[in-house]
Amino acid sequence: MEKIAMLGGGSWATALTKILSENGARVDWWLRSKDDVQHLLRTGHNPRYLSAVQFDRNLVYPTTDLTDAVAEADWLVLAVPAAFVQPVLDKLGRDALRHKSGVVSAIKGMIPGKNVLVTDYVQERFRLPAARLGVIAGPCHAEEVALEKQSYLTIGSPDVSGLANSFCHLLRNRYVSAHPAADLDGIEYCAVMKNIIALTGGIAHGLGYGDNFLAVLVSNAVQEIRRFLQAISPQPRDLSASAYLGDLLVTAYSQFSRNRTFGNMVGRGYSVKSAQLEMNMIAEGYYAVKSIHELNRQLKVNMPITTAAYNVLYERIAPAVELEILKEKLR
Amino acid sequence: MEKIAMLGGGSWATALTKILSENGARVDWWLRSKDDVQHLLRTGHNPRYLSAVQFDRNLVYPTTDLTDAVAEADWLVLAVPAAFVQPVLDKLGRDALRHKSGVVSAIKGMIPGKNVLVTDYVQERFRLPAARLGVIAGPCHAEEVALEKQSYLTIGSPDVSGLANSFCHLLRNRYVSAHPAADLDGIEYCAVMKNIIALTGGIAHGLGYGDNFLAVLVSNAVQEIRRFLQAISPQPRDLSASAYLGDLLVTAYSQFSRNRTFGNMVGRGYSVKSAQLEMNMIAEGYYAVKSIHELNRQLKVNMPITTAAYNVLYERIAPAVELEILKEKLR
Repeated sequence: MEKIAMLGGGSWATALTKILSENGARVDWWLRSKDDVQHLLRTGHNPRYLSAVQFDRNLVYPTTDLTDAVAEADWLVLAVPAAFVQPVLDKLGRDALRHKSGVVSAIKGMIPGKNVLVTDYVQERFRLPAARLGVIAGPCHAEEVALEKQSYLTIGSPDVSGLANSFCHLLRNRYVSAHPAADLDGIEYCAVMKNIIALTGGIAHGLGYGDNFLAVLVSNAVQEIRRFLQAISPQPRDLSASAYLGDLLVTAYSQFSRNRTFGNMVGRGYSVKSAQLEMNMIAEGYYAVKSIHELNRQLKVNMPITTAAYNVLYERIAPAVELEILKEKLR
Repeated sequence: MEKIAMLGGGSWATALTKILSENGARVDWWLRSKDDVQHLLRTGHNPRYLSAVQFDRNLVYPTTDLTDAVAEADWLVLAVPAAFVQPVLDKLGRDALRHKSGVVSAIKGMIPGKNVLVTDYVQERFRLPAARLGVIAGPCHAEEVALEKQSYLTIGSPDVSGLANSFCHLLRNRYVSAHPAADLDGIEYCAVMKNIIALTGGIAHGLGYGDNFLAVLVSNAVQEIRRFLQAISPQPRDLSASAYLGDLLVTAYSQFSRNRTFGNMVGRGYSVKSAQLEMNMIAEGYYAVKSIHELNRQLKVNMPITTAAYNVLYERIAPAVELEILKEKLR
């Protein structure tokens, strides 16, 4: 039996725990909230996310004890918000992951303040070879996993035929297709950048731009992401693969995306601060804009969409002004 | 003053007439319906489509007389449904277009029964050089043009710096960006094929597939379209450009697409015939599926999405069965 340590209590962690445990894996599930762990232990349901999903208590072991969750696991799956991943991981000893089969990140963001990918941080902090790292990408709303709607996941890892393939095997079921891919960095960056696009799409929507503009924004986004990836991690890749374009689409066209909602409020005239207060949370795209923009200071890739989002969110340029400039750059 | 003959009374013809006439061009507008022409002459509004748009009666001349509309025009714009374009064009003499600056097709379909592109038909029938032909593509809902929402159009023509550039100039305004491109055939085929994708997305939706699946379908569609275009009209092209991907997105993600609605009814269990009766019209994707599938008999490109749609619509395979097969082929 494969043993997995799942870190995080959100909807994506909940969906992945469902998939993995239904396939017979043991999941030691670390959640920060004691109440949620108690509820899970008592009822087999996560009270906050996908609460209809019933977990098999012979396979799923919720806990607030991080060291305990990780100790015996073959695999570590990271699904905490990007903003918290570093403090969580830093609680583990530097050798804690040495004997794992793999560390797989399901996080769509970068380490704040450091501008490094989550897998790069894990690799350095725990002194792991790159071949022991992976990323889960998919055009995948967790809510649709809960409903068992057909979904596709991609596992990116330099060890395609080993790690990526093995983890795909743990995920595949009646409603999940999983495919291995080699481009860990590209897939991980794209998962970060798609939130910038969804956020900018939200700003445009808030300003009254319509579906014609959104389609052009997303088309140009593919080109912007391609340029950035070629600069930061050059290798041949087809951005129309599901792990890139599919993931971008499911986010940019989702009415429920937090990034889109946040952007929409900013476009409608809320200040960044009041939009964050109103939403009672911070959209991941807000940090992604800063990280990618700062990384691009050296790379100097032409990135009109990221630049527009940065100017609105961090330079206090009026959204209407910035979008007027952006719209001239798109085609 | 440029003189344009606009053929067609639908929403797209109406939107293009608005754009062209507002830029000061004279539009001789051929519509089939006498009542609509009378209404336009009397009120300056098209009673059926975008009826809020007020036309300048010093520039827009509606008529049911095809020969008259075409006689003095510098440009011919084709915006009738693909199913009717041949009978309409066949009313014109073979030399009627000899002295036009260009013939630009805004039609998203092929000549039924012949499986040829509209521009190919025009070229042969009127013995025109390819450089006098163009196509208008865009991610562009006509309804958003009526609302003057920012839109982007691409004019494809072998004569990029001449015809395509000149026609772009006629379209550009405060809310329309227009760009020339060389790939007439690729853009025209893509405009046909996007309706197949929207239709298949509708079938999937009708069967209960969700947004995760749609994102994967559209990603795979880009790859399927790319393979087909490389076989039928090989040349380097970037399918993430707005004229291809943008046009596909605006159609596949539109709740109002006739192709999606038609597919949705088929997915929910309507027969093809009863879906057509219920909609009181035939979705263009229905014909596109047959044309592209038949063209592919020689080319033998791997086209799982088109094949699935063909099997459902023309081979009476149950949608649920066909989508089960398709879902295994996507990734």
